[in-house]
Amino acid sequence: MILQTIDYEEGSVVMIDQTALPLEERMLRFSRADEVAAAIRSMRVRGAPAIGIAAAFGMLLELENLLRESDPGTAGFFFDRKTGMSGARGVAIDPGAAALKLNQAADLLAATRPTAVNLFRAVERMRGVARENPRDSARLCSETGAEAFRIYEEELETEKRIGSFGAALLQSGMSVLTHCNAGGLATAGYGTALAVIYSARELGMDIRVYADETRPLLQGGRLTAWELLKNGVDVTVLCDGAAASLISTGKIGAAIVGADRIAANGDTANKIGTLGVAVLCARFGVPFYVAAPLSTFDPDATCGESIPIEHRADEELIYFNGIRTIPEGARIYNPAFDVTPAELVTAFITEKGVIYPPYDRKTGRLPGEGS
Amino acid sequence: MILQTIDYEEGSVVMIDQTALPLEERMLRFSRADEVAAAIRSMRVRGAPAIGIAAAFGMLLELENLLRESDPGTAGFFFDRKTGMSGARGVAIDPGAAALKLNQAADLLAATRPTAVNLFRAVERMRGVARENPRDSARLCSETGAEAFRIYEEELETEKRIGSFGAALLQSGMSVLTHCNAGGLATAGYGTALAVIYSARELGMDIRVYADETRPLLQGGRLTAWELLKNGVDVTVLCDGAAASLISTGKIGAAIVGADRIAANGDTANKIGTLGVAVLCARFGVPFYVAAPLSTFDPDATCGESIPIEHRADEELIYFNGIRTIPEGARIYNPAFDVTPAELVTAFITEKGVIYPPYDRKTGRLPGEGS
Repeated sequence: MILQTIDYEEGSVVMIDQTALPLEERMLRFSRADEVAAAIRSMRVRGAPAIGIAAAFGMLLELENLLRESDPGTAGFFFDRKTGMSGARGVAIDPGAAALKLNQAADLLAATRPTAVNLFRAVERMRGVARENPRDSARLCSETGAEAFRIYEEELETEKRIGSFGAALLQSGMSVLTHCNAGGLATAGYGTALAVIYSARELGMDIRVYADETRPLLQGGRLTAWELLKNGVDVTVLCDGAAASLISTGKIGAAIVGADRIAANGDTANKIGTLGVAVLCARFGVPFYVAAPLSTFDPDATCGESIPIEHRADEELIYFNGIRTIPEGARIYNPAFDVTPAELVTAFITEKGVIYPPYDRKTGRLPGEGS
Repeated sequence: MILQTIDYEEGSVVMIDQTALPLEERMLRFSRADEVAAAIRSMRVRGAPAIGIAAAFGMLLELENLLRESDPGTAGFFFDRKTGMSGARGVAIDPGAAALKLNQAADLLAATRPTAVNLFRAVERMRGVARENPRDSARLCSETGAEAFRIYEEELETEKRIGSFGAALLQSGMSVLTHCNAGGLATAGYGTALAVIYSARELGMDIRVYADETRPLLQGGRLTAWELLKNGVDVTVLCDGAAASLISTGKIGAAIVGADRIAANGDTANKIGTLGVAVLCARFGVPFYVAAPLSTFDPDATCGESIPIEHRADEELIYFNGIRTIPEGARIYNPAFDVTPAELVTAFITEKGVIYPPYDRKTGRLPGEGS
């Protein structure tokens, strides 16, 4: 099942509010890029591939508004997920004003979160299309629209391929540990780490998933459990600290996680807590896989130290649903990501196949512009 | 500062409600053993040494009630923490009835939680005193009262000695990571792991503490932070998953945790998540210390597999402050403890000194009856 994480409908960006799950399936509808930027910052949409798509769609909204100013009425861009049909109305707008709006939106969206590289790639692709069409507004619109929808569609296709390549690494009857949410909610709708699970099950394998709840924002307990259950997958949630006990018992056949950015040498930034899972897997002899599109690899980052790590607000830890759990006066350490050294990664599962070490010779030569 | 975790006042067991901290310093007052048993089960009092003391005091309550039935009025037992003075009124009661009540209370209290061995040791010490005084009720009362208060006082003395021995392992300027709460709240009032911090600071060392918040019940974020701040210690709280990032940066000079039961070979049961910290410390070359009284060592448990591990209710994970975070249909894995193999423990800090490997030759010969 493909989750409808983000959509472009009737001139609006529509997304499921991931902060409201699993209690409520609330849909959000945005008509301005700054609203999308705020949604990314507050993690109503999160996950490296998903925020890339959200940013591309967010940029379209600014063109959409110019089109409507010029000719109110029907939407400027249309996109049909089912058929893959997309397009843009050919209303004449000032191409200079359009480029300015696009670039302002790009700046705003790129400044939301620093770690996931997919965000910057998506924004740069959109900027590139605008640069290439400086004079013809109809062309600018059709090309940027096509590019945004291409980002979405390529991502979805990529996820299916990741799933297929990854499924070959699993065996029926296996239990797989995952951390955070690298599923349909984090992506175009099928997932990266969870795509492997979905593909394995489509091949008839019996796979059980253990999901770290993933403090502080509980993406594992709230989101991974929710989407796995929606897809009929047997899921067990554990607190992050219980992963050591679970792995040490020998119950886990493999750990699979997603990634926010992967350096040229294979060092992998992913949700805080991933490094701990990787170290435990190494200690107890469990394969540790990173499932990610090639667009997550950043050849400009030579190693993990080159990846900027976002530190998020203290309040994420101090309060839970508005109730304080940590006394006043305590300091807070709240990095959103950690870096797993390449030596702890058994293999990367990408849309082009499974990459085994040594990574630097392979990932260091990646095109750096996605697939 | 010695925390007043548990007291025996005017014929009642008085304890601070650890489930209400840090928002509220609520004192609970119990007059029956079954109330104390319920408080242990619901973790209003927790921590291996503290539940041992609570159980001993809980048994006294049953004698207290017999004394009052026989002669209503002033309390049967008295205990003054400041002076260490204690005693019991010499009212004649039926010694058979008294022994029966004591044994019933012992059974009830021993059945509350399976992992921490201190609970069973305390209950057995109290039973032993009752067995030795089968006929003389005045003597039965004075001896059981003295034994209960001795358990408390020995524990406190033990904690101070653990603190002194442990402080010698630290250096001023060091940052220490701890997990869960092994402080005054978990003990007679000074702590085991945190006693080392308190002692080091009393010696003038500048020590900063990092406290894992410790899901699911947040003893680190709620309790450790609270008592360290009360004692003027600089404390930083992190979610359990962030410990890997923190340790990998090289900021942590040592990890110190408590223990609920230590097998003869040194395998250590402690709060879920401890094993993960130990594996990370081994990986990144950080000393990993277990601070515990000798009464926590169980020579009858040959190795970690001999230690029963309590699994607690799913609701501890599913709900957070009464609000559901995990969707219906998900399974839950919620062991309260994990076992750290002896090879990951740099040393044990006990009241008799610091024990280095090989442990089996040393801890396997421990008296098994506490200090």
